[in-house]
Amino acid sequence: MDMHWTLAHRAQKMNPSVIREILKVTERPGIISFAGGLPSPKTFPVEVFSEACAKVLGDDGHSALQYAASEGLPALRQQVADMLPWAVDPAQVLITSGSQQGLDLIGKVLIDPGSRVLVETPTYLGALQAFAPMEPMVEGIASDEHGPDLHSLRHALGVEAEPGDAPEAPERRRLLQLNLDPARDFPRFMYVLPNFQNPTGRTMSEERRAALVAEAQRLGLPLLEDNPYGDLWFDTPPPAPLTARHPEGCVYLGSFSKVLAPGLRLGFMVAPPSLYPKLLQAKQAADLHTPSFNQRVVSDVLKDGFLDRHVPTIRSLYKAQRDAMLEALETHMQGLDVQWNRPAGGMFIWVQLPAGMSAIDLLPHAVDKGVAFVPGSAFYAGTADPRALRLSFVTPTVEQIRVGVEVLAQVIRDHAPHTA
Amino acid sequence: MDMHWTLAHRAQKMNPSVIREILKVTERPGIISFAGGLPSPKTFPVEVFSEACAKVLGDDGHSALQYAASEGLPALRQQVADMLPWAVDPAQVLITSGSQQGLDLIGKVLIDPGSRVLVETPTYLGALQAFAPMEPMVEGIASDEHGPDLHSLRHALGVEAEPGDAPEAPERRRLLQLNLDPARDFPRFMYVLPNFQNPTGRTMSEERRAALVAEAQRLGLPLLEDNPYGDLWFDTPPPAPLTARHPEGCVYLGSFSKVLAPGLRLGFMVAPPSLYPKLLQAKQAADLHTPSFNQRVVSDVLKDGFLDRHVPTIRSLYKAQRDAMLEALETHMQGLDVQWNRPAGGMFIWVQLPAGMSAIDLLPHAVDKGVAFVPGSAFYAGTADPRALRLSFVTPTVEQIRVGVEVLAQVIRDHAPHTA
Repeated sequence: MDMHWTLAHRAQKMNPSVIREILKVTERPGIISFAGGLPSPKTFPVEVFSEACAKVLGDDGHSALQYAASEGLPALRQQVADMLPWAVDPAQVLITSGSQQGLDLIGKVLIDPGSRVLVETPTYLGALQAFAPMEPMVEGIASDEHGPDLHSLRHALGVEAEPGDAPEAPERRRLLQLNLDPARDFPRFMYVLPNFQNPTGRTMSEERRAALVAEAQRLGLPLLEDNPYGDLWFDTPPPAPLTARHPEGCVYLGSFSKVLAPGLRLGFMVAPPSLYPKLLQAKQAADLHTPSFNQRVVSDVLKDGFLDRHVPTIRSLYKAQRDAMLEALETHMQGLDVQWNRPAGGMFIWVQLPAGMSAIDLLPHAVDKGVAFVPGSAFYAGTADPRALRLSFVTPTVEQIRVGVEVLAQVIRDHAPHTA
Repeated sequence: MDMHWTLAHRAQKMNPSVIREILKVTERPGIISFAGGLPSPKTFPVEVFSEACAKVLGDDGHSALQYAASEGLPALRQQVADMLPWAVDPAQVLITSGSQQGLDLIGKVLIDPGSRVLVETPTYLGALQAFAPMEPMVEGIASDEHGPDLHSLRHALGVEAEPGDAPEAPERRRLLQLNLDPARDFPRFMYVLPNFQNPTGRTMSEERRAALVAEAQRLGLPLLEDNPYGDLWFDTPPPAPLTARHPEGCVYLGSFSKVLAPGLRLGFMVAPPSLYPKLLQAKQAADLHTPSFNQRVVSDVLKDGFLDRHVPTIRSLYKAQRDAMLEALETHMQGLDVQWNRPAGGMFIWVQLPAGMSAIDLLPHAVDKGVAFVPGSAFYAGTADPRALRLSFVTPTVEQIRVGVEVLAQVIRDHAPHTA
């Protein structure tokens, strides 16, 4: 009992996930939860996995259960490269233990204590958590429904002028750095989630993508593009990834969690040749390699275009669930000063409570009546919007969505300032 | 092509694994490799895994493929606690993606840049690699065939006196720190691998364990105990783990890689309550959780005492392989000034070449003749013993062991100084 463990300074920056704490409360039986970001288990192709497990273990079980290369299974790296909508060399693909691990590896390789990292406002909480142990200074760039605001981005970079006949990027960057406070050096990267963002559900427009990439190229700002939801579009595919437009300036993170199943923890990153070796060394030190068995099973599942048949079934299920939630919001929020968006894909709707209300204060009342959500404040690097909250429409049933939104509307009505 | 990625300072400390580089060379067909630390695939219970996969997916495939708790599957945490030879609360068990990940999490939570970390001489290379990104000052404590030398340990801690009527640990520790160079603060922990160590195959004696734990308690030195090979004993089980003697002062790392299969990447750590929450937060940020599917499959395999029936078959196979290698060494190294030990379990024999020889220089000649090993120098935190090399006896067949050792002896004879 005499023991005293001296923690690293960075351990102070680690905190339990607010969402995971909320999820514990919402596991109470009878709660209709719009809080979780869990894919609908209905979409998991259990039979197909079962066949693939039998096949992988039957064909060459000994190799499937042995240690393997840190880069990942060659066949799976090739399949990932073939899947992506730009020319990707499989040598640039690193298989990760979920795309969360990609965030961890990027943090280790690119973030020094005090390094500036730019994010959207709001942004994915798991990314903030993955970066936190490396002690960055995270700065939220103001964002609208089309993505990050480029004026705010230029301001953060110390470039007030609009794009024009700028010097080439490295020169420009040196000039910029001369004018910057040395303590505020050039950001190591900007983290963006362009498709059906977690938490807002918004999609970065074609115009904003083109402009953001042009600015990143002009200023030499690396981009970290996270795309777990891109395949879950409802009517039309989203615009091309940022990385497709500027591969040497971007790291791309992808995942099989939303199109196959999250319980296998299988993701990937695509990194430029100048960065790949360090990410690989970080991967090797972190867990040697992602389970070889899981890689072989997913590689087997992917054969013969399985995703082309399977993903449309997820899209139509989630679209029906989104429509049910939008309809329920239309019906039950009438007369309340509540706003929400209409996501073109993914899993989330972003809601604004009436002026003067706080989603954090509302949550216990909602849970009391049997409905849960995640207050938006969890997703801000800086000052949070207290009125925002995130609703997931993929885990509950359509009937639960209807009932849950009605209950939520009543709770808002009961606590809205103008009805008090 | 303008892009310039600014790497974190710690990225300089990351390096490709020497062993993995050697393994690439030895994958040439026809090479007899004593280099790899791969378990024999013959020991992987493929059929049993196949049944468990079918059962897990058949019983509740949707849960097995969903996101899960960062702590790990409750049933598996209970099984791990029950397996260990001291009273372990399952709440202190954290399931990890291989025990390599345990090393990564410990590094993140306990190591600041410049923190002192003590290791045995030599020590496990993967641990050095896992700690390196956190930029510790690693110090090798002189070690003999029974484990770390306690005089050297006391010297490193600035305590020259032998144990006696010392003040209680925290007080003692404060006094120590007053006398120490502030730049050389008290070590954050000492990393030890007491059973059939990688690379030496040696086992820490009961007497040394008792004395090391007593010193660690007296001085308040945390211990990190890594035990991947403990179940692979040949004649008698090794003495009780260090952690069993002093649970609040130790973190214990275990693995299913050597008793079931490494390709599932499943390990665990047991940590005291004061440290567990931070390790859990680091785990959550690193990869959310270890694959729920893999945890359920292994939990199913472990039921009904499977390991009690299975592990003895691994022990007898590896014992026969060790015996074959010892016999071949006796036969073929005659007349050469070569020394080796007789490991009581595990996977490795540690060999000393004749005086004046270098294992690094010898390796290309050996590979040329069709035999590979790992030069011992890979395993030292400080000055390496150039004569040492590691031979793994578990992957090749008995026939390959005989032929490979004969070839190795001839290569040594051809290059030994006194025969030149």
